[in-house]
Amino acid sequence: MINELVKDYNTALNYDGIDGKRLAERLDAISKIGVLQTGGVSRPGFSKEEKDAKALVSEWMEAAGLTVETDAAGNVFGRLAGRDDSQSVASGSHVDTVPAGGNFDGVLGVLAALEVAEAWKETGYIPDKSYEVAIFSDEEGARFSSGVFGSRAYMGLVDDELIESLRDSDGLNLEEVLEQYGSSLPDFKKIQQRDWTFFAEAHIEQGKLLEKNNLPVGIVKGIAGQAWLEVEFKGLAGHAGNTPMNDRQDALVAAGRFVSELESIPKIVSSTAVATVGKLAVYPNGANVIPESVKMIVDIRDIHEKSRDMLLELISERAYDIAKERDIDVTVSRTSRVKPVPVEETYKDELRDILTDLNIEAMELPSGAGHDSMNIGLELPVAMIFARSKAGISHNPAEWTSLDDCVLTVHVLKKFIEKQMSK
Amino acid sequence: MINELVKDYNTALNYDGIDGKRLAERLDAISKIGVLQTGGVSRPGFSKEEKDAKALVSEWMEAAGLTVETDAAGNVFGRLAGRDDSQSVASGSHVDTVPAGGNFDGVLGVLAALEVAEAWKETGYIPDKSYEVAIFSDEEGARFSSGVFGSRAYMGLVDDELIESLRDSDGLNLEEVLEQYGSSLPDFKKIQQRDWTFFAEAHIEQGKLLEKNNLPVGIVKGIAGQAWLEVEFKGLAGHAGNTPMNDRQDALVAAGRFVSELESIPKIVSSTAVATVGKLAVYPNGANVIPESVKMIVDIRDIHEKSRDMLLELISERAYDIAKERDIDVTVSRTSRVKPVPVEETYKDELRDILTDLNIEAMELPSGAGHDSMNIGLELPVAMIFARSKAGISHNPAEWTSLDDCVLTVHVLKKFIEKQMSK
Repeated sequence: MINELVKDYNTALNYDGIDGKRLAERLDAISKIGVLQTGGVSRPGFSKEEKDAKALVSEWMEAAGLTVETDAAGNVFGRLAGRDDSQSVASGSHVDTVPAGGNFDGVLGVLAALEVAEAWKETGYIPDKSYEVAIFSDEEGARFSSGVFGSRAYMGLVDDELIESLRDSDGLNLEEVLEQYGSSLPDFKKIQQRDWTFFAEAHIEQGKLLEKNNLPVGIVKGIAGQAWLEVEFKGLAGHAGNTPMNDRQDALVAAGRFVSELESIPKIVSSTAVATVGKLAVYPNGANVIPESVKMIVDIRDIHEKSRDMLLELISERAYDIAKERDIDVTVSRTSRVKPVPVEETYKDELRDILTDLNIEAMELPSGAGHDSMNIGLELPVAMIFARSKAGISHNPAEWTSLDDCVLTVHVLKKFIEKQMSK
Repeated sequence: MINELVKDYNTALNYDGIDGKRLAERLDAISKIGVLQTGGVSRPGFSKEEKDAKALVSEWMEAAGLTVETDAAGNVFGRLAGRDDSQSVASGSHVDTVPAGGNFDGVLGVLAALEVAEAWKETGYIPDKSYEVAIFSDEEGARFSSGVFGSRAYMGLVDDELIESLRDSDGLNLEEVLEQYGSSLPDFKKIQQRDWTFFAEAHIEQGKLLEKNNLPVGIVKGIAGQAWLEVEFKGLAGHAGNTPMNDRQDALVAAGRFVSELESIPKIVSSTAVATVGKLAVYPNGANVIPESVKMIVDIRDIHEKSRDMLLELISERAYDIAKERDIDVTVSRTSRVKPVPVEETYKDELRDILTDLNIEAMELPSGAGHDSMNIGLELPVAMIFARSKAGISHNPAEWTSLDDCVLTVHVLKKFIEKQMSK
């Protein structure tokens, strides 16, 4: 497949300094670190496997002429000095995985960012500003059940209260984990942001929209902010045999109606909003006992804060309305709330132009999942591009993005970063 | 309260040989066997506590002139010889309890049946046929998680396959439990039915219908047959953030709709039918994962087999319809099915007359719960009367039936049994 023309698009696997074979070999080399006999790879945050993957990428960075630094959260930065070294543009992602995860989530973003620098080296291009390739630690949050951890640390968002609460599955706290990793908590607390003016991230879509539209790459129009509502309906337990149908305060009937009506609410606020009940528990959960209470988490996301918060309101109201109609109690609590990160129009315009030049229809899609860019985007302008995921599968050994799509992703990222250099 | 006129009704606490004080003292004495410091009583089937309660009642039986026999399932029978001793009419219930149960469930039926014999002794009444007071073992099924066990054994319904499968919470099989109890498995297998022509059972309602209608006693119009459907909706797991609302196969949304629509189905088949989902599990049950599957038990009951089975069909169809509309899979399996036991019109007529004579409005209500009568009723005619339960609470230390209501229950039972004697 290497060196074939990438079907239908105005580019090739090896073109303009980008080397499809190198990218394939590097994806392959990383896929062997933490590989499981049972399928998939495991490189949890702050593990030896994550560290080994970072070390291998660091070797490639140095070979490509980048200067590598690591901060106290284990985040790795490879810097290529530009004509003006006083500020930099950055791109990257992560190399950790969920348990038994796949080979593209995170890794593609890191290798794509590095391949941009490789291509420049190959063609002798020297960027106007400096360029940094970033590897953030523990994006999946597998270590402390606390996601996008490395980029949060980088942005100074891991406060003392959170530090205090963190324990890994062995009961280790952050200080112990950092020491095992070769860092320290005092250093962690002194982490400084770098001189970035902009951050771009390439990532696999982890959804099916690109595949459905037969497109290799898409423009992320915003990163959804996730909010959780904990909803608990409280009725009255009773004997399933001795309580007539018209004399029940069945918490599960109320909860069932709420869950089934939930799916029609997001479209009221926006076409990108979603709401999901993934976790639900019935009490006392006996086959012959009318449920007394049902507790659930409603996961609510949109890329615009206003519509996301409107959705929160509408969903809360629906819970109250159903409880009132059915004469049962309900409590609704907000347990978590992350700000959505919109992508500025100017970046989306640039990406549209780049895709059009490559003969790729420019499609915009939301990122429902959180990414490192979400944290960086709280202070800096960010942009993301998505590569097509086969069948939308992710966090799974079957995760797959074709080499053609990976290479196209690098092409788009490279042209986009070059645009930022010339600003 | 003893010896006061029972308010509003044509009887008194002590009247016609029935002694309200004796009944109160006996309820009190039994309530002390297996009493827990934390509230409630525990007399699981085949426990020392159940055996002690049976022994105490047996003493009272013998003192009242009854001849006591125990079968190999621990079922106790106290026989009062009638003018014709070739056949008998029986009444009774059980003295075992659920863990931390109450003081009326079962016990009232046994003591009411005994109080009938006591009243006869007091007034010199000799019944035309013999009369037996029965105490069935392990009605609650707490020993082997297998309900109405003693009466099933009595009816010869505990077959070898069931015996093989029984284990108590200590891992003991039926043979070991019987030997500890002083019986044996070979004897258990030889249990014979007695010479009963009819069985009547008084029991607390364990529901709120009598209380709502301000009535002390009611006529059971049939014992509901319970059927269980195991319903599993199977959709497709997906990322709660990256899967658009219109591209989901969310098993919980389907299950929610099914549960919420369920409550309107029973009334299509009968006014006594009920359907309940008390137990439900979501897989994988992660807050940010669209549910792949939802498994639940639907408990379906009615006192008529035809309408109960029609309800089973309607509910299964609804599950299939919802799955089809939502393009997901569903499996529906029948895991348990008990025949409903109707009460013959002639007994209900007699009970109506008795209640009217006592100035009690004759109300008929279904028994949603299973009772020992359910097993006896598979071969013999049976009838049941319910005593009012405070707030419908049962299987709970707060279970309560006033002494007035208990005594009225004995009056109704006594007159009803006397009717059967003269047939």
